[in-house]
Formats: sequence, C-alpha cells, structure tokens
Amino acid sequence: MEKLKNIQVAIIVGSDSDLASISAASRVLDDFAIPFRINVASAHRTPAKVKAVIREAENQGAEVFICAAGMAAALPGIVAAETVNPVIGVPMEGKSLAGMDALFSIVQMPAGIPVAAVAIGKAGAHNAGVLAAQILAVKDPSLKKKLERYREKLASSVSEKDTRLQEMGLEKYIEMQKKEAK
Amino acid sequence: MEKLKNIQVAIIVGSDSDLASISAASRVLDDFAIPFRINVASAHRTPAKVKAVIREAENQGAEVFICAAGMAAALPGIVAAETVNPVIGVPMEGKSLAGMDALFSIVQMPAGIPVAAVAIGKAGAHNAGVLAAQILAVKDPSLKKKLERYREKLASSVSEKDTRLQEMGLEKYIEMQKKEAK
Amino acid sequence: MEKLKNIQVAIIVGSDSDLASISAASRVLDDFAIPFRINVASAHRTPAKVKAVIREAENQGAEVFICAAGMAAALPGIVAAETVNPVIGVPMEGKSLAGMDALFSIVQMPAGIPVAAVAIGKAGAHNAGVLAAQILAVKDPSLKKKLERYREKLASSVSEKDTRLQEMGLEKYIEMQKKEAK
Amino acid sequence: MEKLKNIQVAIIVGSDSDLASISAASRVLDDFAIPFRINVASAHRTPAKVKAVIREAENQGAEVFICAAGMAAALPGIVAAETVNPVIGVPMEGKSLAGMDALFSIVQMPAGIPVAAVAIGKAGAHNAGVLAAQILAVKDPSLKKKLERYREKLASSVSEKDTRLQEMGLEKYIEMQKKEAK
Amino acid sequence: MEKLKNIQVAIIVGSDSDLASISAASRVLDDFAIPFRINVASAHRTPAKVKAVIREAENQGAEVFICAAGMAAALPGIVAAETVNPVIGVPMEGKSLAGMDALFSIVQMPAGIPVAAVAIGKAGAHNAGVLAAQILAVKDPSLKKKLERYREKLASSVSEKDTRLQEMGLEKYIEMQKKEAK
Amino acid sequence: MEKLKNIQVAIIVGSDSDLASISAASRVLDDFAIPFRINVASAHRTPAKVKAVIREAENQGAEVFICAAGMAAALPGIVAAETVNPVIGVPMEGKSLAGMDALFSIVQMPAGIPVAAVAIGKAGAHNAGVLAAQILAVKDPSLKKKLERYREKLASSVSEKDTRLQEMGLEKYIEMQKKEAK
Amino acid sequence: MEKLKNIQVAIIVGSDSDLASISAASRVLDDFAIPFRINVASAHRTPAKVKAVIREAENQGAEVFICAAGMAAALPGIVAAETVNPVIGVPMEGKSLAGMDALFSIVQMPAGIPVAAVAIGKAGAHNAGVLAAQILAVKDPSLKKKLERYREKLASSVSEKDTRLQEMGLEKYIEMQKKEAK
Amino acid sequence: MEKLKNIQVAIIVGSDSDLASISAASRVLDDFAIPFRINVASAHRTPAKVKAVIREAENQGAEVFICAAGMAAALPGIVAAETVNPVIGVPMEGKSLAGMDALFSIVQMPAGIPVAAVAIGKAGAHNAGVLAAQILAVKDPSLKKKLERYREKLASSVSEKDTRLQEMGLEKYIEMQKKEAK
Repeated sequence: MEKLKNIQVAIIVGSDSDLASISAASRVLDDFAIPFRINVASAHRTPAKVKAVIREAENQGAEVFICAAGMAAALPGIVAAETVNPVIGVPMEGKSLAGMDALFSIVQMPAGIPVAAVAIGKAGAHNAGVLAAQILAVKDPSLKKKLERYREKLASSVSEKDTRLQEMGLEKYIEMQKKEAK
Repeated sequence: MEKLKNIQVAIIVGSDSDLASISAASRVLDDFAIPFRINVASAHRTPAKVKAVIREAENQGAEVFICAAGMAAALPGIVAAETVNPVIGVPMEGKSLAGMDALFSIVQMPAGIPVAAVAIGKAGAHNAGVLAAQILAVKDPSLKKKLERYREKLASSVSEKDTRLQEMGLEKYIEMQKKEAK
Repeated sequence: MEKLKNIQVAIIVGSDSDLASISAASRVLDDFAIPFRINVASAHRTPAKVKAVIREAENQGAEVFICAAGMAAALPGIVAAETVNPVIGVPMEGKSLAGMDALFSIVQMPAGIPVAAVAIGKAGAHNAGVLAAQILAVKDPSLKKKLERYREKLASSVSEKDTRLQEMGLEKYIEMQKKEAK
Repeated sequence: MEKLKNIQVAIIVGSDSDLASISAASRVLDDFAIPFRINVASAHRTPAKVKAVIREAENQGAEVFICAAGMAAALPGIVAAETVNPVIGVPMEGKSLAGMDALFSIVQMPAGIPVAAVAIGKAGAHNAGVLAAQILAVKDPSLKKKLERYREKLASSVSEKDTRLQEMGLEKYIEMQKKEAK
Repeated sequence: MEKLKNIQVAIIVGSDSDLASISAASRVLDDFAIPFRINVASAHRTPAKVKAVIREAENQGAEVFICAAGMAAALPGIVAAETVNPVIGVPMEGKSLAGMDALFSIVQMPAGIPVAAVAIGKAGAHNAGVLAAQILAVKDPSLKKKLERYREKLASSVSEKDTRLQEMGLEKYIEMQKKEAK
Repeated sequence: MEKLKNIQVAIIVGSDSDLASISAASRVLDDFAIPFRINVASAHRTPAKVKAVIREAENQGAEVFICAAGMAAALPGIVAAETVNPVIGVPMEGKSLAGMDALFSIVQMPAGIPVAAVAIGKAGAHNAGVLAAQILAVKDPSLKKKLERYREKLASSVSEKDTRLQEMGLEKYIEMQKKEAK
Repeated sequence: MEKLKNIQVAIIVGSDSDLASISAASRVLDDFAIPFRINVASAHRTPAKVKAVIREAENQGAEVFICAAGMAAALPGIVAAETVNPVIGVPMEGKSLAGMDALFSIVQMPAGIPVAAVAIGKAGAHNAGVLAAQILAVKDPSLKKKLERYREKLASSVSEKDTRLQEMGLEKYIEMQKKEAK
Repeated sequence: MEKLKNIQVAIIVGSDSDLASISAASRVLDDFAIPFRINVASAHRTPAKVKAVIREAENQGAEVFICAAGMAAALPGIVAAETVNPVIGVPMEGKSLAGMDALFSIVQMPAGIPVAAVAIGKAGAHNAGVLAAQILAVKDPSLKKKLERYREKLASSVSEKDTRLQEMGLEKYIEMQKKEAK
C-alpha cells in the first residue's frame, strides 16, 4: 500500500475493471489538487481488505469516500456502514439490466446509512470527484473559489461550443464532430 | 441470544419488518424438523453483529444461511462473503421500484461469491425453506424422503382443488373463494 | 419568509404534498441541532423563487441543500446548477412508473453538476438529513461525535429488536407487531 | 449569436453531442421553409444562457421551442417554465437505462407546465420538426397545405416500397437492402 | 352527437372509464373559455367512429386533438394518422406495468406522425388542456395573455403555500394537510 | 374429472387463485356456445397432471388451449411443448414486478414453440376467450358470424356510452359513474 | 399489388426495415406450403392502405394475419380492429427501451380485440409462422401432420446437437461454434 | 450419451448457444474435481429428453442440477419440478429486454418448487459452479477446504491487483489494461 501521506479522499473500486471509468473522478481530484488514494477492494471478495482500507484511509485523513461498483453493487453501502464520513457511490454499467442493478443497489439504502448516489458510468465518476470537492469546500474557502471557477469554465465550454455552432452552421459543425470522432 | 443448541439453518433478516414474510421459511423448516435460529441483523446498520451471528451460527453447526432483505439488499451477499456455506437470498418487496431493487441487489452477485436468489416476498421465503431442506437432504436420505412426501402433498393439494372445481363448477368455486377471503 | 437567522441546511420541496415525506429529513436535522429552513418552491412553477430561496439561504449561511421532488424531478438538478454547495436529491414516489421517473430525473445528472441522490421516499428523506449532517461534520468534530453516537443508537435499536425476538420467539414477536400496527 | 433575423422555432440542445440527432428536426423545418435558430445551452451547466436564448428567440418571433436532452433531461421542462409558448421535448438515448431516464425526465411534467414529449432519438427529433410545423399551421393555412402534401409523400414512400416489394419478391428485396446498407 | 357549434379542441377517450381523469383537461379548457367537444371512441373497438368524430370535429373547427387511452394506447397515434392538426396524447395508468404500456404506446411514434405525449394520468390530462391552450395561443394574443395570468396564478399558489408554511411551521402544516385529506 | 363430453377449448390455470380472473375467458366461451373444460394443474407442482389434462382434453376434441399463470409463468409454454394445437397464454399479475414477470415468461418463447400471449389480467383473460373463438371460426362460418355480431355489439356499447355522454354532459356522466362504482 | 391468387395468411409489416426479421415467418409458411402475401403498410403513415390490404387479403382467402411493427407498434391492433380473423403480432426491437415499447404496444390490447403476441424479433417472427400454421391446422389434418413432423425435427435437431456435444466434448464443441460463427 | 460414470452435478442447457457461457460453470467444477455431465435439452423443444436426462443423471448419482436458459427460461423450473435435488438456474441474456425476461422466468418460482437463481450470463454461470460445490461441501469436508482455499485465492487475486495498482499508479495500470484487452 502507498505511503501514509495525507489524503482527503479515498477512492475504492470493487474490481480493477472499474478503474478506467473511475479515473474520471481521480482526474477531477487532481485538477482541484485534492490528495487522494485509490484501491481495489471488493465488498464480496475481500471484505476484510475493505475495512482495512477504510481504517488506513481515515488515519491518513480521508474525509470523503468515493466507491464504484457494478451489478449487486454492495461496496458503497458497506463502506458507508463502516464510517460516518460521507460516501459517494458510482454505479458501473454491466452487460445486462441496463445499469439498473448497480443503480438500485447503491441508491436504495435503508434509513440511517446514506450513500450519495451519482449517475451511472463515466459521467457519474466525474461528478463523484466534483461532489467530493463540494463537500470538502464546506470547510475550505479556497476550494470553493476553485469550484466557482470550474463552474465558470464549464459554462464557458458550453458557450464556446454554441459560438462555434453559430459561426460554422449546423452542417459543418456535425461534419467537424464526425472528423474528430475518427 | 438463544442457547447454543445445535442448528442446521441460520435465518438472518435485515429488519424486523421482514419477520412476518420470512416466517414462511421458518414454518417450512419446522415442518421438516430442521433446527434453526433466526436473528435480526443489518448489513448496513449492524455489520459487526452480522459477522458475530454468522460465526456463532456456524459454531452451532449451521450449514445453510437464509437471508432476507429489501431495497439495496446487501445482507445476503455480505453473509455469502463471510462463509463458504450456501446462502439463500430472499428479496423483500418495498414501496417503490416494484421489488426490482431488492431482487437485482441479491441476484447480481459477482463471480466467486454466489447467492441463491429465490422469488420476491412470501413465495420466495417459503421456497428458501424448501431449498435449505433440499441442500441438507444431499447428505440426509431421511430428509430426502420427507421432501418427496412434501412434493406429493403439494401435488395432491393442487389436484384436490381441481377435483373440487370439477364437482362444484367454476361459478360456485369462485363464490366459495370469495366467502373464504372475507 | 422566515427571519434571517443563521442556518446550515436549506430544504426545498417542489410541492407541499412532499412535506409529510421530507419531514423525516427535518426531524434528523432537529435531532442533530442543525439549524435549517424549509421552503416550497417549484423548478417548473416558480423558477424565480427557487433562485431567490437559494440566494437567501446562502446569505443565511446554508452550506448544504436538500431538495425533494417527484415525477420529472428537476428541482435538485436546478438547485445544483445555481450553487457550488452540495445538493442532496430525494426522489418522491408518484402514482405511476414505480418511482423510477423521479429517481432517474435526479440521479442521472450530466458531468459537472452533481446531485447526491438518496433512496426513494421516506427512507431517502431520513438519509438526506443524515447525509447533510455527515457533510457538515467534515468541519465540525462535535457533529462527527453525534453521528457516531447516532450510529451506535441505530445499531443498538436493531440489536434490541433481535434480543426481544430471541426472548419472545418468532410467533409472539409477529403478533406483537400486528397489534402495534393497528 | 446569429443576427436577429425573424424566426418561428427555436431549437435548444443540452449538449453539442445531441446536434447530430436533432439535425433531423432542423431538416424538417428547412423542408417546410420555417425559419429557426439552434443553440447549445444546458439547463444544468449554463442556466443563465438558457434564459437568454429563450428571451432573444422570443424577441425574434419564436413561437415554438424544440429542446433535446439526455439523462436527467431537465432542459425541456426548464424552457417550458420560462415561456408560455409550446415546448417540444426530444429524449436523447444515453448509454444506460435504455433511454428511460431522458424519456421519464421529459414527459412526467407536473400539472401546469406541459412539455410535448416525442419519441426517443432520431425518430423523435424528426417528429419534433413535424409537430412544430403542425402547431404553426394552426394559424398558417399554406403551412397546413404543405403538411398535407408531406403526409401524402410519406404515404407514397411507404406504398412505393410495397410496390417494389411486390415486384422484386421478398428475397431480392432483402438482398437489395443488405447491399444498400453496406 | 352534440350540435355542430364551433369548437377549437376535440377530446377523444378510448373508454368511458378515462372520463374522470380527462375531466382535468376539460376543466382547463373551460377556464380558458376554449370551446371543445368530448367523445368516447375506441381505436380498437370503434375505428370507424374515431374517423367520423375526427371529420366532424374538424368541420366544427377543431384545431387541436386531445386523446386519452390506456394499455396498448393506439388512439392518439391513430388520430394523428388521420389529421395534420396537433394531437396530444394522455397515457392512462392501468393495473399492471406501472403505466409504462400506455406511455410507450403513445410517445414512441414513428417518424412522420408525431403525437405530443404528456404525463401519465391526471397531471398529464391537466397539462393536455394547458398545452392545447398554448398551441391555440400561437394565433390568439388574448389567449396568450390568459396563459401568462394562469402561470402567475400557478406561481402564486405555490408561493402562498410557502408563505403559509413559514407562518405555521412544518408540523402544524402537515397536521392541517392531514385534516384536509380526511 | 368431468365426463368425457365433447369440448373445443381446454382452459388450464396454474393455481386456483387464477380462477376468478380466468372466468372472464370462460364467460366468453359460454356466450359463443363453445364447449370447454377448465382445470387447475401446475407446470411446477403437478407436471404429470398437466400432461394428463392435455391428453384427455385432446381426446375430448380440444383444439385450442387457454393457459393462465403468474410469476415464472411456465404453464403456457409447457402446454405448447406438448401439443401442436394453438396455445393462448394469459399472464396473471402478481404483487411485485408489475406483471412483467408473467408477461415475459409467457411471450418470450423460443423459436419453434409459439404461445399466443394476450394482455395481463382480466382484459387478457376475456381476449383469450375471443381469440379462441376466432381460431375456431377459421373452420366454422357460423362462429365467424357470431364474432361479427359480437364486434358490432362491442362497437355499439362504446357508441351508446358516447351517446349517453353527449346527452348527460361530462359532469353528470362522471357523477353517474361514481354512483355505480359504489 | 400481386395477382389475386388464393392465400391463407397475410403478412403486413409497418416498415420495410422489418422485412429481414419477418422473413423468418415467411420461410416457415413456405416450408409448410401455406400460400401467403406480404405487404408493407403502416398503421400511422398509410392507414387507408392497411385497410385496403386487409380487404384484398380476405378476398383472396386470408384466414390469419401476421403483423410486425416496432416502437408504438399499433399495426397488429389496428388490423385486429378490422377483422375477426386471428391476428398475430410480432414486436420488433428498436434502439431504445429494450423492445419493451413494441411488446407492450402489441400485447396490452383492450377487452374485445385480441392480438396474439409472440416473442420480440426473429424468434417471434419464426413463431408467428408456426402459430399461423397451428391455427390453420385446426381445420386441416394434413397440416397438423406436418406440424407434428416439424416438432419431431425440432426435437431431433436439439438431440443431435446433444449427441455431437457428447462425442466432441464441451471444449471442442465450443471451438467448432466459434469457427462456424466466423 | 456419455458412459454411466459417477457424477455429482448435471448441467443442462436449453440451447447449444448457451454452451460458451455455461462453460464458466464447468470449468469451476473441473477445478474442484467434481464429476459432472453436460447436456443440451430444451424444456420446450425436447421436454421428454429433459426428463430422461434428469432420470439418467440421478441414476449416475447427480445431487445438484445447473440449468441455463434464455428468454422464457422455463428449463430450471421444469427440472426443479422433476427432482427434489437442488436446482441452480442461470439466466442467459438475450438481444432484448436487457436479460430481465430470463431472470424473471427463473427466479419467480411459485411456493413449493424453488430454483436457486444466480446472476445473468457468465458471472452467474461461474457462480453456479461455485454454489454447486458449496452445496456438495455440506457433506464433504475436503470440498469445504477447497472452497476455503478458493476464497483465499479469490481474495489474493483482488489484493494482488491492488498491489500492482499501488506500484504502477492509476495511469500506467489503465494503459496496461488497454494493451491486454487488444
């Protein structure tokens, strides 16, 4: 396990096949300069390791957990059961049931043990990073400033696309998109 | 907790609101004279207790687990993660999502940690009892005999209803049902 | 609108028919002595009022928003679009679509603007209160202590039910439940 | 933004990734010679821009809005909340939930603020264009004539396919389709 | 059939069991002083009558159709197939499939023949009335004014509830609601 | 079992709890004077009886089978596997999954062994009777005449309701419905 | 349209994009030497043509209809509304909603106008052909014989695969399948 | 059929297209040195063969059945109806309905005849093998030992991935995965 440097967020994924998706969360944390750790630990295959990671992460200062899992996605709830820090759950889409299995398994927590569920897949992973930043910003005004700038950039990015659309016209814009997709 | 008498099956429900439904399982076990214990222990609210119940139950000789839970029904999977004995999961129907949340949370287990899912609600609870008996019968020929007699009785019960239907005719049979429902 | 006392949480419901459900959140906040305000303001019927409530609430010090809405539940996302404070969304179950409409409308937010979705209905409302407390506890060690005691009480309450079940036996326990339900 | 020429329809998409699909709507408007504008503006990422586009569009004479969005598709409802002109909502299909998220988010509007939902994806986008024309035809008899001719052409196109099928026979027709698909 | 007075909207329901729900639409039309007719005619049981009603209604001046149907709700699409006037479809919730059958049958129209789908049940019926008014307002500035006043009243009604909530406090407000529900 | 009189249709239900719903089918057969038998026999609890009923029914002349079952509704498919006569499957709605379990279990038959699925519940049961009559009418011109008269009556019944609605007006009609429902 | 030769089955598809799938039905009819016609006619785009095809087909002797359609698949129900001959509906899978839209639109017919729904896509199309043959066999003993031989062949084909599996072993069998799939 | 050697598990698939998926189960059985047989036999196309395979398998000593089937997956339930040995059902995902058809058809068994449902597809097939081993281990302490070692290996495999992740860092790990996927 990595050295016990200080962290603020701990990311746990149930399977290493979730890493590519969850990297959307870690990239956001990097952008906000929020220190984090990331581990593979399964609620069903390595329940003891999940607990060990939680304890170690909290010793390192972790204040928010981001957990990604697919299918019967128990990981976020199981982490939530072991900490009073906020836990964000990211449903991973599987091959069947259109992602409803992971979503329902994460969001439908019983009274007392909340998980903050975000969208299925990459968009949700990105938002898990942003939500973690928003939670930490409750006590960190400089982070709040960064979030405001992030929002402005987000808005600008949409507006710039609109400006380019007005300049190029719809047909050329779609052609450009097709080229970029190749 | 009850005295450490010998048991073969351990029933765990995530909430005492599941007891009325799961009693359909315990009645079956009583009918087959299979000793069991039943506990309320929540994967999310009392994770330590879940483990304690599993260990104690196995010390008492438990060879099959029956777990009932609703919503993000993590209990069966979490028990399965802590034992190599077979675990039967009974999805409890909640007020929303038509029972799909509990079913998907129980059945969609990742490779390596199976849960044997049965039907949603009372029918599933009854079948959890029967399935537990079928599993134990693998090593108990007398229990297998009982299961065969149970099946015959089950078939007879359907056939007797058919006989009565032939005797009474459809209209009178439905009238009789309505009276009995009152 | 109520006097500009200091608050930490702002609860907004899309319709006054959601108040009975969301009171499960406000009761939790009261238990944790977290000051809050609660407003009826609809993303679709009073979009200007939603913005006014957000601004006023933030002036009062609101650091977390809890938004409940049913059907095409746009409210949590629209609030999230107007603040960088964390927004918790509680899906309200309607008469059709088994609650899936509100859940999907709340949880499937696009990248950049997260909403922390919790379970459908009363359990979700309760958890929205707990999650708000968990977020605020990131900067308030005394609140974290309270959350730890809350968790212990939660666990005790489940364990006490189990103890009573062991003492009474299953049949009498279910009878007792039936009496209490009347 | 484009010059303030007169328009009748304003198309707004929540993301530029929806442009390829929504071009099915703009092509219909072009065919009916209905002037329109098209903008990228997100209910969640650029709420202020959405309002600005609505106001500007109405100043240009916009009488119908077409809004396309995916996931928690709040855009059509948010536009409907800001105008009393008819708003047509086109659900975009995402990677998960089989398109149900966008559909439910668009169609399940609360009493008072209707959105006219059409089919998911390209067929819906095409129909959004036709529906806009049908609405404008309420005051424009020449547009109604065009719609009647469009319908006749639509019917002829189906009938011509049937005629070709009768001439070619089923097997050759399917072969021809396969060739054309390449 | 009623006398051939002038009308602007024709409401058609597939079964007289839909009348109680659709009356939410007719009440809105009455409030806006929009003349309408209402008929029971089934796409499956009286296809000829459906056509006759459409023709007669158009002779009376009908410019918008509102169609309500449940289950395999073909009525809105079949009416749309016979007119180029805008057709609004209201899905009626049945006993099974949580209303998804009627919703999918109405909204998923093929390219060329749009139906404007609104929400399932009473909220959708109310909105069908409002949407019809919005469509007619495209050529009637006085109706547009009425719609603006309706929106203001809608907003006021929400705001008044919020004001009362601030005055009464949450607990007393919920008590009041319970009393009114009796 | 009833005497071996000649029959044309054999109705089999998987449980006597389905009899009240399926009586909608038998009433239609009675109306068309089509002789039938009705049995309770379960694909899962009395598989041998199912086969015996099929054989006996075919010896009595049964040419169409109507099978009703709920949950994992295997009965229609299992009957279809044992006969080349047409088999009509009626999905019974259960307490969970909104009737989707029975519908999917009945309609999704593999290539080679069709079941003719009808709607969930009473409407489907009624239609199973009508469909059986339509199939038998392929060889019985007098039955076809009856079906045409039935259709006319069906249409008249809808039209009469419409006439009454025109005479009474919407409000009084709804009042009358409420009275009749009591 | 093709010459007025005698036919027994009329196949109608709502779009020529359904032809490749429905050819599974026509191949079965060819195998059983059942004369049929096949037309493209849309309930929504060419309602008049649908009626014309039905009338012409019945003049040619059509006794069973097979209708395939996707999305808001009104075609089977609309054909059923115009004939008392049995109508078989084949749901075509679209890009969204996992095929539920077409299935629900076809199977959930109101009381009085049954459609015999079969499985979604190619398996359903094949079975529509078999079901049509089963219906016609009610009056044609030679066709019934053919159906029995078809069933035997179907069973043999499964059994031969099993025999080959026993001979080759699982691994080699799967390898063989992979090669054949290329 | 293969020689009557002793077996403990009988695998039956409804179609040879299920063999590639179910091989995940047979590989597990091989790893645990549990003798088994595997057959293709369809509940709908070869019902007699299903019974024959069950009888023969039980004569060879089969104590657990694993059945895989897709769509209206009746096979597991039909096998359960013919034996009192435990039956494990593996839902195969089809092209439509997102796998819900097979899952619901397998898990929603009526009271009295349980099927132990596992996850959809390959993960479920693997788990069917593990669950069979767990059931047989009830009477075989050496098998229980093997299961404990399997669990340890499973946990190690997850932990090793985590260790490698810590060593390589997230970016390089994802790159490595992409290379391996090619």
